[in-house]
Amino acid sequence: MNLRVNGVARDSIPALDRAVQYGDGLFETVRVRGARPEFLARHLNRLGSGCQRLRFPPIPWASLVQEVTELAGQSPDAVLKIILTRGQSERGYRFDPDQEATRLLALSPLPHWPADIRRHGIRIRICETRLCSQPMLAGIKHLNRLEQVLARAEWDDPGIQEGLMLDHNDHVIEATMSNIFLVRDGTLVTPALTACGVAGIMRSVILDLARQFDIKTEIRPVTLQQARNSSEAFVCNSLIGIWPVREIDGLAGYTIGPVTQALADALISYRDSNEGNWYPS
Amino acid sequence: MNLRVNGVARDSIPALDRAVQYGDGLFETVRVRGARPEFLARHLNRLGSGCQRLRFPPIPWASLVQEVTELAGQSPDAVLKIILTRGQSERGYRFDPDQEATRLLALSPLPHWPADIRRHGIRIRICETRLCSQPMLAGIKHLNRLEQVLARAEWDDPGIQEGLMLDHNDHVIEATMSNIFLVRDGTLVTPALTACGVAGIMRSVILDLARQFDIKTEIRPVTLQQARNSSEAFVCNSLIGIWPVREIDGLAGYTIGPVTQALADALISYRDSNEGNWYPS
Repeated sequence: MNLRVNGVARDSIPALDRAVQYGDGLFETVRVRGARPEFLARHLNRLGSGCQRLRFPPIPWASLVQEVTELAGQSPDAVLKIILTRGQSERGYRFDPDQEATRLLALSPLPHWPADIRRHGIRIRICETRLCSQPMLAGIKHLNRLEQVLARAEWDDPGIQEGLMLDHNDHVIEATMSNIFLVRDGTLVTPALTACGVAGIMRSVILDLARQFDIKTEIRPVTLQQARNSSEAFVCNSLIGIWPVREIDGLAGYTIGPVTQALADALISYRDSNEGNWYPS
Repeated sequence: MNLRVNGVARDSIPALDRAVQYGDGLFETVRVRGARPEFLARHLNRLGSGCQRLRFPPIPWASLVQEVTELAGQSPDAVLKIILTRGQSERGYRFDPDQEATRLLALSPLPHWPADIRRHGIRIRICETRLCSQPMLAGIKHLNRLEQVLARAEWDDPGIQEGLMLDHNDHVIEATMSNIFLVRDGTLVTPALTACGVAGIMRSVILDLARQFDIKTEIRPVTLQQARNSSEAFVCNSLIGIWPVREIDGLAGYTIGPVTQALADALISYRDSNEGNWYPS
């Protein structure tokens, strides 16, 4: 693991940092491909939205981009996690609006997944842990992640790759570490994330690709029943790309259909395009 | 600030600790009085409940108590914050159930509050930030505190000491850093915390005191209207003890009534009793 704190090689942060005390911060998980941070512009854009939502002070974006690019350059294939914290402050929830944010970068090896996942699809379960509705935090990738930690602790079976998370109204929102897409009557559907969930970077890429391919898209509330009655399903995130879903909670019946396949193929081409490889010059 | 990590004087923690990454941990804010950690048994008990809820590994309680007692001994009057984190783990939400927890202790000076607060009461506002309903996390004092951070950032007026937080059903739950009590027709009422909120140590002390004094108590859902129609109101936590409320959102009308006064007096005596001064021998 290769770590940087505010541009300096360090493997620790102050114990009084507000990330430690309150989870007061944001993060991004970036795929490094060809020693470059993939979709960096989109990641920074979401990070910027998060900063606005949490009322973070101005971020030295140029320094951050330089540090990310430099660190990504050290490995052809890796995971680069960016964490922005509100830094240290005096005791109590109140923060100093002028306190500079802390930038933490961590470069780590790409996880290993079974090679046949993309061909055969994954099995996912339905988690008992529900996502609570909090519009003020919905969509952004903040550091308050206990719901995901509890959800991921619900199963141990290595044959199950992901867990679907519902809200308290039995709507499907996302999976523990990925977003979900469904295909219904040829339309690509993904849950609305206005009250909870993380608006993933790969989710935004896939929605853009679908529009380019004239695949009809819908972002709306999705019930579990609707998810089960879909012809295709897949999950996605910045690291895994697209993983077709074969089975939800023991109910098989999904095939790796034409829409999933078209999008998976398109994603590969898109990654070679300018935007996919965007990095600061 | 006097810091300990796993019993050793240190002012930083590993950047990959799960408290930094996910807010994966718990905390307690203990009042040090007479160089002893006040209500330590109750704090450790709540910490234990939190550990169970978050599926933490067994905690070396004896070491923790020893470290807390030793650190508290360094100051007659102070704040001692205990943080338990799930420690470091590999990337991803999944945790190793056998990973040892990290103990972080911080001793800091007692905050200064205006001397007349106890006599004249405080003004509180109603926060726009709502608490989301998450029964799996309700009651425990975990490190996912962005709702409180956002709520506390809503006001800057030093004449307003606290902010009341409601859930999405317009029920009063707590204040940003304290619990709330109301007196209605001689009955002491405090909101039920089954879906959100922190079950404060001072809240539990006050409920016990009220029962000892034959004051009728009710723990139940409380609407904002009911809070406004109460004859007395006060907030409490381990540091401030009891602060009478004089005004909610500009609506004055509360007096420091007989129930509030009786409980405030009882609290002082109780602190001198065995349980109040409980500390390991």
